[in-house]
Amino acid sequence: MTSAQPKPPMREALVDAAFELFLARGYEQTTIDDIVTLAGVGRRSFFRYFPSKEDVVFPDHERCLADMTEFLAASADTDDPVARVCDAARLVLRMYAEKPAFSVQRYGLTRQVPGLRTYEVSVVWKYERTLAEYLRVRFADRPDGKLRANVLAASVVAAHNHALRDWLRAGGEGDPTEAVDQALSFVRQTWSPDSDGPGGGHAGAESEDVVVVITKRSTPMWRVVREVESSLGEN
Amino acid sequence: MTSAQPKPPMREALVDAAFELFLARGYEQTTIDDIVTLAGVGRRSFFRYFPSKEDVVFPDHERCLADMTEFLAASADTDDPVARVCDAARLVLRMYAEKPAFSVQRYGLTRQVPGLRTYEVSVVWKYERTLAEYLRVRFADRPDGKLRANVLAASVVAAHNHALRDWLRAGGEGDPTEAVDQALSFVRQTWSPDSDGPGGGHAGAESEDVVVVITKRSTPMWRVVREVESSLGEN
Repeated sequence: MTSAQPKPPMREALVDAAFELFLARGYEQTTIDDIVTLAGVGRRSFFRYFPSKEDVVFPDHERCLADMTEFLAASADTDDPVARVCDAARLVLRMYAEKPAFSVQRYGLTRQVPGLRTYEVSVVWKYERTLAEYLRVRFADRPDGKLRANVLAASVVAAHNHALRDWLRAGGEGDPTEAVDQALSFVRQTWSPDSDGPGGGHAGAESEDVVVVITKRSTPMWRVVREVESSLGEN
Repeated sequence: MTSAQPKPPMREALVDAAFELFLARGYEQTTIDDIVTLAGVGRRSFFRYFPSKEDVVFPDHERCLADMTEFLAASADTDDPVARVCDAARLVLRMYAEKPAFSVQRYGLTRQVPGLRTYEVSVVWKYERTLAEYLRVRFADRPDGKLRANVLAASVVAAHNHALRDWLRAGGEGDPTEAVDQALSFVRQTWSPDSDGPGGGHAGAESEDVVVVITKRSTPMWRVVREVESSLGEN
């Protein structure tokens, strides 16, 4: 083809050039000068978009973190906070799933370069902190609100990353949405909003449709039935 | 005092000198040369103990991580895995609690220097991974074993760090053990070993002593009773 193709924006051109070089000769062996030369731009252009070589490996996290913050800030008080942080985590999934090949290549790089792994872990921590900050406000009226917020945020991030990592390890084939949904529902079942949750007692309605009764095996049946009845609101 | 005091080992002398300088003039403004000069040793001695300036800020994590790995490797198959990872997390607490003033000073440094914060986050991730690896083996026979291991490890680390951070923010006063125990028991109540837990199906015996029944609110009472009966093993 000889016809001119539309040039990608400079930021994307830098990312493309960087990954081409990282994959061909290795991350450590690639300099910022190499990247700007291949992209056909000056050094200052690089630093206009990326503070360091590490940042070009994760070009979308900052935007995604901003999207997540905005998404959570737009929550209503009536929103289920657990569902909300799960949906917020799905924004990260979408970012990875939009560019499967790129995501898998980057996953390979982060396995090889300890500095990139550290960078990635610190990005994950920023997501976790963002979720926790939202939950802390939502759980402000609970005596264990902060602890609950921090542990729940960590659980959501761990579940999300578990499913995401499986998908990346499998080469980014297919749609990771279902696996992430399953992993997040595992967390939601522990932390369902209407449940009193750990330490809060399990008896009573867990949601509009579900009733949970926990009883000792030795409890006489008539007591169990009475508890079920009172949970169901029947007398 | 003019009598000669026993000299601390060189490694500790380097840590002491480093922190004296970090606190007096700032982390970024202190060079490795400054540290070795104050400690009265050569540059090569520094690098014998610490790969980088960052590592001198966290001199005990490597040992603690090794202790944790050893502690978990020494587990019996009969150990409650959830209790075991909570005990493993307490090794980290002990390391901080042994040197309250040092831990609080370091906490201040990690708030001020983003690079140290990143380093700390990557250390936390190593602890989490160590706990998760142990749990993955213990949960190997569960269909959701890996997910459960990863989420539980993240929960334990988040709860531990929540209580530890509170103690550090309060200036390291008093004994943080009780607060950490409370935070960990919050997690244990969610993830009690005999519970089928989230995703594992709630109907049926949760342990020898506890029966859990989950039913839709619209389920007729006779069906609920039948399910309770069959869970209890009565007919």
